[in-house]
Amino acid sequence: MAAEKIDALILRLPENITLLGGYYPLTGLNFLIFPYEEEPVLLVPASEKDEASEGWWNNLASFELGTITAGDPYEKIEGLLEDIVAQKGKSWKRIGYEGSFEFLAPALLSGEGFYPAEPTRQMLLRVFRNAEMVDCTELLHNERAIKTEDEIAQLQIASKIAEIGLAKFREAVTPGRTEAEIAGLVTAAIMKDGVGTHGPQRVQVFPQVASGSEHTSKAWRPCEITTNRTLEDGDLAVLELGVVADGFWADTTRTCVAGKISARQQEVFDVVHEAQEAARNRVSAGVACSDIDNAARTIIEKAGFGEYFIHVTGHGIGFRYHEPVPALHPENSDKVKVGMVFSVEPGVYIPGFGGIRIEDIVAIAEEGVFTLTTFDRTLGNT
Amino acid sequence: MAAEKIDALILRLPENITLLGGYYPLTGLNFLIFPYEEEPVLLVPASEKDEASEGWWNNLASFELGTITAGDPYEKIEGLLEDIVAQKGKSWKRIGYEGSFEFLAPALLSGEGFYPAEPTRQMLLRVFRNAEMVDCTELLHNERAIKTEDEIAQLQIASKIAEIGLAKFREAVTPGRTEAEIAGLVTAAIMKDGVGTHGPQRVQVFPQVASGSEHTSKAWRPCEITTNRTLEDGDLAVLELGVVADGFWADTTRTCVAGKISARQQEVFDVVHEAQEAARNRVSAGVACSDIDNAARTIIEKAGFGEYFIHVTGHGIGFRYHEPVPALHPENSDKVKVGMVFSVEPGVYIPGFGGIRIEDIVAIAEEGVFTLTTFDRTLGNT
Repeated sequence: MAAEKIDALILRLPENITLLGGYYPLTGLNFLIFPYEEEPVLLVPASEKDEASEGWWNNLASFELGTITAGDPYEKIEGLLEDIVAQKGKSWKRIGYEGSFEFLAPALLSGEGFYPAEPTRQMLLRVFRNAEMVDCTELLHNERAIKTEDEIAQLQIASKIAEIGLAKFREAVTPGRTEAEIAGLVTAAIMKDGVGTHGPQRVQVFPQVASGSEHTSKAWRPCEITTNRTLEDGDLAVLELGVVADGFWADTTRTCVAGKISARQQEVFDVVHEAQEAARNRVSAGVACSDIDNAARTIIEKAGFGEYFIHVTGHGIGFRYHEPVPALHPENSDKVKVGMVFSVEPGVYIPGFGGIRIEDIVAIAEEGVFTLTTFDRTLGNT
Repeated sequence: MAAEKIDALILRLPENITLLGGYYPLTGLNFLIFPYEEEPVLLVPASEKDEASEGWWNNLASFELGTITAGDPYEKIEGLLEDIVAQKGKSWKRIGYEGSFEFLAPALLSGEGFYPAEPTRQMLLRVFRNAEMVDCTELLHNERAIKTEDEIAQLQIASKIAEIGLAKFREAVTPGRTEAEIAGLVTAAIMKDGVGTHGPQRVQVFPQVASGSEHTSKAWRPCEITTNRTLEDGDLAVLELGVVADGFWADTTRTCVAGKISARQQEVFDVVHEAQEAARNRVSAGVACSDIDNAARTIIEKAGFGEYFIHVTGHGIGFRYHEPVPALHPENSDKVKVGMVFSVEPGVYIPGFGGIRIEDIVAIAEEGVFTLTTFDRTLGNT
């Protein structure tokens, strides 16, 4: 903020409220005024005051939401913001905001969310009419890319909760079950054994299950459809699993076979497995993103599957399922640093055969590099 | 569109892509150009072309997303939009857009979503530099408020899928289970028996379970935390259940008791039950929203619980969990119309005792009024 001469940040998004407000929102309608020199103030719905007061800031202001007397919450919010600016911000000249965040994490209410559009934009222009609005998206993403030890500990918890789902998946992949049934079992296991057990009560599970050669060969897509396709003996099954625990994200993938594993499945799996391990072993502070990617990619290319590994080797994670820094892309020469947490997830997707991916989150902590999910990566038990 | 002299709509949001594009998106990064006089064009990630071609429009344009060669998808999108405007839109003077949508439905990828912010705004201003941008939020919400018979049939399917969860909830509410465990069982039941069975394969489940007097007395909140609290004999449990099936939403609530029902619980329940039935029976095309609200509210007030019924009696539903039209608010004299679909959900939340709500979706179809969820509303079996 000092380098950019920002006098205050105005933050709206659940992911940045978690980052700088220490609070994972319920509905997601929040405003955090974060001045460079004064105490921050967090605006929350009145119904969330108890939860929000567990965050970092005692300085809360609230507005009614969801009651018959609430009226338009934006009117109340604008009044609260005007008051804060009148009290603390008369000399503010540059206000940082989240202008270019277009890929967003949900609040706990993930079935529906509040996102800033024209009304919020116009309100902020009115409230900060005497200041310049500065898009701090890149600043925030870079700030977020380096996690504190506490944040890494929170991410470790999210990954431990996700591992409950990995264990259930491995057990549930059997002929006769549907993709959707398996996804439901993964969710149910995490809800039963993962909520509250490690601390976080606000847990959500986002599983995607693909099975058989046709569905798994498309399982590189940013979103897969979990259908009622029934698994048959010898089918591949890929679980892509996102979990959020009090605003901190886990992202992990396992591939298993229902019943008997074919020689070809084992062969392709061994290549992906070796590639993933090589990339994880390549991680160290100061190594280029492209080098980590290449550690996986060269093994897959040498085995003749290069054309089937069409995505990056990994991405940042933390306050969202996918964060942009670091990007383990073959052409990205940026170096990974202490504090970075990211996925390592090579995959091979062969039309007519199927897809195999293994994904774990790796953290570069002060005391060294470690993998947050260590659950069994093998294809199955046969 | 004719009344507002809109030459074309440019739509970005999953809910409006479902409405006018006939496609429930996977990742949610779509643009639909919907001209008043020409064929619409839907922009989709290349990986979603197969699914999107099942929508209403054969006219698809695509861009790479999620691959190492994708680059910045926005550059490709801007080029595609420029081409469309050059071909069809040279004379377009007024472009409608979704300026004031701030409360949004997720795409299938609900753990993370693409939402328009400054980059999209600037891109649209460049692409439509020769036209005026007109905020069509209200127009779209009003258009959406009147459902076609086909849309009501889709909403009926979503509610039928949700009823699988209601049945599981009723069975699962027993002493010894946690709120989170019950929520997981509800999700698992719907995934197992609801995906694909009635048609829709793209199903997501958003359950919120509150139990005991403290948690249920707050269960009016827009978002409740589903914790690892263990249910004890005689505890109230409230399930708020959102389900989306191919982009169409269901919203239903049941309250049950784990074990033995107390006389007081039965007494409060009977009032809420009677109020909900009275409000549903009051629904008819041409009746004021306030009259439907009052049908429920007067019964609750007469029983002495008026101060504990602090939210509206209902809200629209369809392409999102909560739509603004109609709003069954005590002061809203607007009349409900044929084609409207909305919740009826009175509730009473008494500090120290607990909360009870019953919610069903009601549709005013051409052939009459009917309730989309008819599953057992009683408190339990004891």
